[in-house]
Amino acid sequence: MNASDAPSNSAPVGIGLLGLGIVGSAVTSSILSAEGQRRGLRLCAALVRDRARKRGVEIPEGTLSTDPETVLGSPDVDIVVELMGGEEPAMEYITRALSAGKHVVTANKEVISKHGEKLRNLAAENNVSLQYEASVGGGIPIINPLLNDLAANQILGLRAIINGTTNYILTQMASGGASFDDALADAQGLGFAEADPTADVDAFDAVYKISILARLAFGVDVPVEKIFREGIRRTESQDFRYAEELGYTIKLLAAARREDGGLLVRVHPALVPSDVPMAKVEGVLNVVEAEGDLVGPLWLQGRGAGAEPTASAVMGDVLRTVSIIRGGGHVPEARPIDPDLPLLDMASHECKYYIRLTVRDRPGVLAQIAGALGDMDISIASVLQMDSDPERGNADLVIMTHPAREANMQRAVERIDSLGDVDTISNLIRVESYPSDR
Amino acid sequence: MNASDAPSNSAPVGIGLLGLGIVGSAVTSSILSAEGQRRGLRLCAALVRDRARKRGVEIPEGTLSTDPETVLGSPDVDIVVELMGGEEPAMEYITRALSAGKHVVTANKEVISKHGEKLRNLAAENNVSLQYEASVGGGIPIINPLLNDLAANQILGLRAIINGTTNYILTQMASGGASFDDALADAQGLGFAEADPTADVDAFDAVYKISILARLAFGVDVPVEKIFREGIRRTESQDFRYAEELGYTIKLLAAARREDGGLLVRVHPALVPSDVPMAKVEGVLNVVEAEGDLVGPLWLQGRGAGAEPTASAVMGDVLRTVSIIRGGGHVPEARPIDPDLPLLDMASHECKYYIRLTVRDRPGVLAQIAGALGDMDISIASVLQMDSDPERGNADLVIMTHPAREANMQRAVERIDSLGDVDTISNLIRVESYPSDR
Repeated sequence: MNASDAPSNSAPVGIGLLGLGIVGSAVTSSILSAEGQRRGLRLCAALVRDRARKRGVEIPEGTLSTDPETVLGSPDVDIVVELMGGEEPAMEYITRALSAGKHVVTANKEVISKHGEKLRNLAAENNVSLQYEASVGGGIPIINPLLNDLAANQILGLRAIINGTTNYILTQMASGGASFDDALADAQGLGFAEADPTADVDAFDAVYKISILARLAFGVDVPVEKIFREGIRRTESQDFRYAEELGYTIKLLAAARREDGGLLVRVHPALVPSDVPMAKVEGVLNVVEAEGDLVGPLWLQGRGAGAEPTASAVMGDVLRTVSIIRGGGHVPEARPIDPDLPLLDMASHECKYYIRLTVRDRPGVLAQIAGALGDMDISIASVLQMDSDPERGNADLVIMTHPAREANMQRAVERIDSLGDVDTISNLIRVESYPSDR
Repeated sequence: MNASDAPSNSAPVGIGLLGLGIVGSAVTSSILSAEGQRRGLRLCAALVRDRARKRGVEIPEGTLSTDPETVLGSPDVDIVVELMGGEEPAMEYITRALSAGKHVVTANKEVISKHGEKLRNLAAENNVSLQYEASVGGGIPIINPLLNDLAANQILGLRAIINGTTNYILTQMASGGASFDDALADAQGLGFAEADPTADVDAFDAVYKISILARLAFGVDVPVEKIFREGIRRTESQDFRYAEELGYTIKLLAAARREDGGLLVRVHPALVPSDVPMAKVEGVLNVVEAEGDLVGPLWLQGRGAGAEPTASAVMGDVLRTVSIIRGGGHVPEARPIDPDLPLLDMASHECKYYIRLTVRDRPGVLAQIAGALGDMDISIASVLQMDSDPERGNADLVIMTHPAREANMQRAVERIDSLGDVDTISNLIRVESYPSDR
């Protein structure tokens, strides 16, 4: 439907669903509720894989179909709500919907992250809206605040916990001493993690999300392959124990920040001081911390996943689209691309580091390691000798450094790894910086 | 300007300011910035009291005037930005602007709280928008999330710290042991409190704000005089000392919640458990905690006052209005009034209470007090005998009760006050309930 033939305020608005899993069922409940009916929402068609499958909501007769054309080709469908996930065929269907002059609401972070610019342009050409509040942070309003409320700010930085699965796993490891494998199995049992957990634990999901936020906050199109990405598989239970002794916990952070000369976007596990609020965001909660030149620091926290929080965001977008349809086609614009803000390489990042290594327990080892670090201009802030294993003649060392550049640290790590008295560098975790004045 | 004669995307949008204090100066800077110019903003006129006064920003020649007609009567002004504060003449000017078909952006909580419904209707009749994100929570996006992002939720409750001045004073009293008078003088010296602090310390400001939020969250028009209001003047430094011993701190809370039979809206100081996040919102920070049936709990925190955070919200509204003007007039609608949600009286509220009294230090006093409470079905959870003054034969008692109804507690307090061995009931503070399951 085009702005030019907008229906009147009382005319029903037709909705077509692509996908009817747990989020789709919650969205359907909301469309069919008394409030949804009062708003004039009408569920016209829903694309499913299996029409016979039981669902948590009663679907009107004749609505389910396995043919996408019932949604994409129906003149009754004004808004297409895409909840299939994954890149294809979701991307193809969204493209067809926008090209056919239908408004689109999607929760698909992968599609928006990889093809957002193309789809936003296609929506603008067809004078329809494309909304994706549910693609980041579940029910937390963050896309629209960045698009609208914070539009007058120069955003200085974003820092977020935006993957509920990994935050649940890390919380279990921190509080219960669980191993990574046990915590993952636990998350899978509770439905917080997929059978194939790669997207979450290897941080692809968080990378998609921070790229979407960075585009809106900074006006920079960030290809996902340009984002520094490290997942949580190397994190072991003793890292939590040692981190706690040092006054930290471990979180998977996604961050984007203006630095000298450009924008650095990174996703990796980080040591976070135990006494900052970020350390206390537990379980499947998400948070986005934004800093604007006018607004200062903002903290937006809520449930980052789950059927109902995601449905809250999807339905917010649907109702906004209904307003747009009835009001005559106002579509909020994203910031224009900023040509003066290049993406920086992680090599230029500077932070303190936590290094856990297993070494031969004999004199001179530390001197060799300190030498390798010192050669790269990295100085040691503290060394803890933790669990030692007299039988094998080994000991665990935990080294905390003063701030160092990533490029230097990577070269130092190579050097240390080649030392004869060093068995393994078990983990290298970046320490997140929290200036006391913020 | 009406939707029917919307300018093209490149046409400038004229802005008229009513008031040019510190917020107005920050807004002016943003309008005159490169980004403001790129967006096509043009500052046409600014109403001031004193044209000669020095301001922190350079104002274009011929813009300042002491005659409101230069703003309200100018055909060049598309958006009137009202930053005068206070009920009159702001209300008159906003009314005239809307009636003349001009869009309005305002930061005026008193006007929106008292006359919001009338002004929203007037805006709708004239097919213009009325926006007031800056009226609550400074730069925190809260009005628009309630209007848009959370529109599909039934909101179950709101709980907030929405007055920066009192939160600064209470934080000073909690951390430094300052007296109320000293903390107030400190806040005044730093510009966080007015010379006449009544609006803040007697909680009128928080009442205006929670009434605005309650209207949007629950679809209930809440007259400010129907809101239970208690300020922070009775709170003394020993209350913080005793509260801390009991595991609490003291905050001025504004809350609105669906309860059996209706909506209870209240603003008062409360004992908040030291280990909940609300206890750690310090200084001039604000927070709004919202709970929706779909989204679950949300936590939105940021700077609640100050020139730049307020300008962030005002400019967000201005840019949204520019989109509306250029897109052809989409104005988001507030929830309709819910006729089935009556306002409840504070008498029905139930909570634990902290009672601080000075009594004659002799046997039998506690039995009399316990009896007066017991007669009203209130049982005591703990009693602490704090500072005693042997010379005067007095002692301070702090009583924590089990949950009780406000009506019963008020009658019990009357009875206790009339006991011969009770000198003074120095303070009665409600204990905020934080169910462990939320």
